[in-house]
Amino acid sequence: MTSQDLYPVSRLAAVQKATAESGLDALLLTPGPDLRYVSGYQALPLERLTCLVVPAAGEPYMMVPRLELPAAQASPASRLGLEFVAWDETDDPYEIAAKRLGPAAKVGLADRMWAMASLRFRSAMPGTEQVLAGSVLRELRMRKSPAEVEALRQAGEAIDAVHRQVPGFLRPGRTEREVGRDIAEAILAAGHETVDFVIVASGPNGASPHHELSDRVIQAGEPVVVDIGGQLHNGYCSDSTRNYCIGEPPAEYAASFEVLRRAQDAACAAVRPGVSCESIDAAAREVIAEAGYGELFIHRTGHGIGIETHEEPYIVAGNDEPMEPGFAFSVEPGIYRAGAHGARIEDILVCTESGGLRLNNTPRDLVVV
Amino acid sequence: MTSQDLYPVSRLAAVQKATAESGLDALLLTPGPDLRYVSGYQALPLERLTCLVVPAAGEPYMMVPRLELPAAQASPASRLGLEFVAWDETDDPYEIAAKRLGPAAKVGLADRMWAMASLRFRSAMPGTEQVLAGSVLRELRMRKSPAEVEALRQAGEAIDAVHRQVPGFLRPGRTEREVGRDIAEAILAAGHETVDFVIVASGPNGASPHHELSDRVIQAGEPVVVDIGGQLHNGYCSDSTRNYCIGEPPAEYAASFEVLRRAQDAACAAVRPGVSCESIDAAAREVIAEAGYGELFIHRTGHGIGIETHEEPYIVAGNDEPMEPGFAFSVEPGIYRAGAHGARIEDILVCTESGGLRLNNTPRDLVVV
Repeated sequence: MTSQDLYPVSRLAAVQKATAESGLDALLLTPGPDLRYVSGYQALPLERLTCLVVPAAGEPYMMVPRLELPAAQASPASRLGLEFVAWDETDDPYEIAAKRLGPAAKVGLADRMWAMASLRFRSAMPGTEQVLAGSVLRELRMRKSPAEVEALRQAGEAIDAVHRQVPGFLRPGRTEREVGRDIAEAILAAGHETVDFVIVASGPNGASPHHELSDRVIQAGEPVVVDIGGQLHNGYCSDSTRNYCIGEPPAEYAASFEVLRRAQDAACAAVRPGVSCESIDAAAREVIAEAGYGELFIHRTGHGIGIETHEEPYIVAGNDEPMEPGFAFSVEPGIYRAGAHGARIEDILVCTESGGLRLNNTPRDLVVV
Repeated sequence: MTSQDLYPVSRLAAVQKATAESGLDALLLTPGPDLRYVSGYQALPLERLTCLVVPAAGEPYMMVPRLELPAAQASPASRLGLEFVAWDETDDPYEIAAKRLGPAAKVGLADRMWAMASLRFRSAMPGTEQVLAGSVLRELRMRKSPAEVEALRQAGEAIDAVHRQVPGFLRPGRTEREVGRDIAEAILAAGHETVDFVIVASGPNGASPHHELSDRVIQAGEPVVVDIGGQLHNGYCSDSTRNYCIGEPPAEYAASFEVLRRAQDAACAAVRPGVSCESIDAAAREVIAEAGYGELFIHRTGHGIGIETHEEPYIVAGNDEPMEPGFAFSVEPGIYRAGAHGARIEDILVCTESGGLRLNNTPRDLVVV
């Protein structure tokens, strides 16, 4: 897969059309996933302004600090044939960008634009309403192209390869941090460009869904939640959670794990075009609630994934967005018993015409090490 | 050094006082360096709102997604004795935060707050003016405590240890990316928690100050700019640039390198309490301009450094901020000849009562490999 497959030149025109249709005068895209999605350019997120300006009508252009100009020219953005407007250290790039754009009633800011930029744009364009570029881009980013699905499949394979090595890293007497270090190395060795997160939550720490690696020593008989992910060089992300146990698990844990296993299967089975995102959340929640663990499932069932680990669509109560082929997202119910233990099973799925296709394929049962 | 040394509990009260003195009603600090500076909490930057609200008067509190609550409680923020306000997946945390704060004329947003949060705060607090929290925090963050200077000294030692290994990685026939991979591993092995950037810019690529690693094969006789940095576990950052050459350099390059060497020394020698930031920039620029290379020095001389690689104070024309003991920043003039080569020499310095103290101490001369 080439950069052209994942970040086609034709996308800029599609974004420009969607911007016009949304009644926005322009999108202002600073470094981050929105900029990368539209241009392929993975610009450094720095205090100096880099910004792709996509007007609803007229020629797009990119504000670039003079010293970043060669990097921008060497990036995939150069394929777009747009003008790079280089600014010098003592210029005000916000004024330059605003003046060039002209009067604008409403602009869309990259969802991750820093306040240091959004407030400067507000000053430079005092009468202009600011909304999120996501209001335009979500409709495009949510619907993955075949090339994007293929990239996510590769990411899934890469993180699966890491999970297969985890039993070799988990030994009683090692700390979470030691195990986490081995996993981080394996994530890079499996072909990721960056390690995005490594959760190794042993025993009671498993009850904290976003537990940070600690110096806690892993004990025999303890369940361990391992939730890991990274970003491939092409920008696409992996994310998968599996559960391990050092020897046989406590009986109470094993019982709730079986419920969780069924809940995750039920949610995956519920995926097909036309059903709402919240109905997939409900499918998992129902199984867990019926078994009496409803209060212990303290988060939504999943999040979209692509060039961000968390993006639209969110699989959460209140989201009535209907599923479409090409939607890619996690299904990751969890059961958390504070002070005791926790468990979460997570796969990335893509919605196809015939239902949900899992992109993670290591065994979902508890792995007894 | 403990977390308490670097992120003292007393800081919150100092920030609250400074907020009141600046005429702001509150600071709203989402995950990122501002939040970490004030609370010690390195929260995950995610779409769910985590936000420390520091009112000018009254009790600070932290909005936390329910599933992050155990992580927040396990973080250094728990030392502050503030209330964690946990919100559930279907709550609107912006409304909750705004309601609890009450009427506010002006609030300061974390400089890196994402637009997806700043615009939601704008809707939840429609009459409230938003400014940057940096307007309050820069005055504190710019003045490093002895513990912070010690952390930066450790970061300097760590990156110096990597530069000492670079000659062993640089061989003609290897690509920039291969060398970069070795350097990234060495950055972690030297005690950094993350690799923040690895620039290996060979031959003509050296003329791009922020060149990205490429598959270009490094040739005999070529100069190579190596600009590298990472973040220690304690949050403090390293950043140092040195110049290498595979065999003897071209004569024209050697001549300009000698000028650069003198310019960097001149800027470092200009550092002392009371002089303006821009005068340090001018000291480097003068030497380079006198030698006739003025047009080839296309960026400012430096940036502050601490828990961000780039922060206040900036060493740039127009910044008349007077130096004070405890200011920490880079001095990194460069000379770039497009299509041919480039060079940059960078040290981190801290301003002391008696002048600038360099925290990087590997040889600054061209290293012939």
